[in-house]
Amino acid sequence: MSRLTLALDVMGGDIGPRITIPASIKALEKDPMLSLLLFGDSQQINPLLEQVPSALKERLRVCHCSRVVENNQGLSYALRHSKGTSMRLAIEAVQKGEAQGCVSAGNTGALMGLSKVLLQPLKGIDRPALISLLPTMDGGRTVMLDLGANIDCNANNLYQFALMGAIFAENQLDLVFPRIALLNIGIEEIKGYKSIREAADLLTGNSSLNYIGFIEGNLLLNGKADVIVSDGFVGNIALKTLEGAAKNVISLIKGKSRNHLLKPLFNWLIKLLFKDSYQRLQKINPDQYNGASLIGLTSIVVKSHGAANIEAFNNAIHDAALQARQQIPEKILAGLQK
Amino acid sequence: MSRLTLALDVMGGDIGPRITIPASIKALEKDPMLSLLLFGDSQQINPLLEQVPSALKERLRVCHCSRVVENNQGLSYALRHSKGTSMRLAIEAVQKGEAQGCVSAGNTGALMGLSKVLLQPLKGIDRPALISLLPTMDGGRTVMLDLGANIDCNANNLYQFALMGAIFAENQLDLVFPRIALLNIGIEEIKGYKSIREAADLLTGNSSLNYIGFIEGNLLLNGKADVIVSDGFVGNIALKTLEGAAKNVISLIKGKSRNHLLKPLFNWLIKLLFKDSYQRLQKINPDQYNGASLIGLTSIVVKSHGAANIEAFNNAIHDAALQARQQIPEKILAGLQK
Repeated sequence: MSRLTLALDVMGGDIGPRITIPASIKALEKDPMLSLLLFGDSQQINPLLEQVPSALKERLRVCHCSRVVENNQGLSYALRHSKGTSMRLAIEAVQKGEAQGCVSAGNTGALMGLSKVLLQPLKGIDRPALISLLPTMDGGRTVMLDLGANIDCNANNLYQFALMGAIFAENQLDLVFPRIALLNIGIEEIKGYKSIREAADLLTGNSSLNYIGFIEGNLLLNGKADVIVSDGFVGNIALKTLEGAAKNVISLIKGKSRNHLLKPLFNWLIKLLFKDSYQRLQKINPDQYNGASLIGLTSIVVKSHGAANIEAFNNAIHDAALQARQQIPEKILAGLQK
Repeated sequence: MSRLTLALDVMGGDIGPRITIPASIKALEKDPMLSLLLFGDSQQINPLLEQVPSALKERLRVCHCSRVVENNQGLSYALRHSKGTSMRLAIEAVQKGEAQGCVSAGNTGALMGLSKVLLQPLKGIDRPALISLLPTMDGGRTVMLDLGANIDCNANNLYQFALMGAIFAENQLDLVFPRIALLNIGIEEIKGYKSIREAADLLTGNSSLNYIGFIEGNLLLNGKADVIVSDGFVGNIALKTLEGAAKNVISLIKGKSRNHLLKPLFNWLIKLLFKDSYQRLQKINPDQYNGASLIGLTSIVVKSHGAANIEAFNNAIHDAALQARQQIPEKILAGLQK
């Protein structure tokens, strides 16, 4: 592992420093080569650092700022009034080269907007996309993008998403020649939007990509493809639908039952029989997993879920560190030039 | 209950008469005022009718035809070569007034295309839509449309879908002033496609409709809205994603466990604790539920799932009979003239 500095917006998310600071400490404990710049209100942050051993404290720096991007601010308002906010300062630290990546659980639209403005898209990429890993029923994982950065996409955008997704999958999932599919409402060639059919032609024409065809919504979790590509509107609807379904099933299992007498026995059996499957389901639960990354920029930006708990925000930091060390942006650039 | 005749395409679906004929007999047993016209290959149908009591047989008529619309045929080919097929003859029986509704488990695209051509859209409806009922976690149901009939929709199409969905919900769910929501990637006014935002304006402007705003994919099953409206592409992706999730969870529960020793005990506990919830989950399982209806035409057309079992196809027949007796097309027409 190489030395690495990440810039964290510790004020974002529904809970802020009470989640993000313990998660940061955990990340420093686990990764001895990691340093963190913590952007946020020092009055809230410092009391949470009191018990931290000084050996860890040497690898973090609190960068005080009193302003934050609110969750309910519209995008254009948030961008216009972003100066001096924890989110903007964290991204600016990456822009200046003080950090190699940034993590925030704040307003998604503002994070994407600011990242696109401050950290340029890679040469050859028209639009950065939101990307994430979904757990599959067979125990593997599938890369999915775009999850909401771009509402309208043309064939070329989708083609670029596929290319970025394949490089992301090669590195994150350690795959050679990952299987790429386009999300559509049927598997026949004539189905769906013109942009999707044209993207299929572009992908078929590139023999260095392993394009396997269209995939429908019912097979998202079945490991049929390593990379699933769609525009940001459809990807966001599909992901949130999955998240809602997972959350509902978990709440069902966790104790919406009326028969409290048998619940402990039942929970024990659930754990015994379905431990792996239950954990996979938990990974789709938005309270638990790490969120998504913005891909196609010159640097790493990871968006943690607003409702992230300590484990989830810690995972987001870990993901940002991994992507920075894997040099994902550089690899995408090389892939584009091939 | 009033007397009613339905036309069935008994050749459609993955299995054909072995499913559709027993389902038809069941429907006749349950509904003494129902008569059925069975369109299909009499050589396959007649042996399946041998054991049927003559009192029931009086209420069915086998209309022999040897041709079928194949599942894998492209839409334009299927339409051009549809003459004399079981699907087309069933729709033509409705067109001629010999039946008040039609049910098929065959090729969805062909069924929609033929229905639109042969059974005119209602005056004031530009595009018929695919509609279905989703079970919600609180034990209720939500109407969702369009599920795949129209890929690109403008604001006016979405507005008409909302209007039809509300009338469908009033009748099928026995609701007054059903809550209407538009499926979107956020709840803020500025989110999503222009067509969705404009549809929101149209719905807000009609005080006879109970429009409650945007809804995200994670709340589809949570009973927050009675009618959820989207274009056919997004609706199809969302529905299939739900179906896939439900199917995966059910297969998980049903016995993918490795610990066979405890499975019977476990299954018994599942039933005991989660009977209602499990049954609700089963209703999203595409093998079990009734499919979808084409709404906005002058007559009733119900599309049963291709993988329907006897219970599911029987439910589809029941739904078609209910919608015909509720005079849904006439009520939509009246709603449009208000």
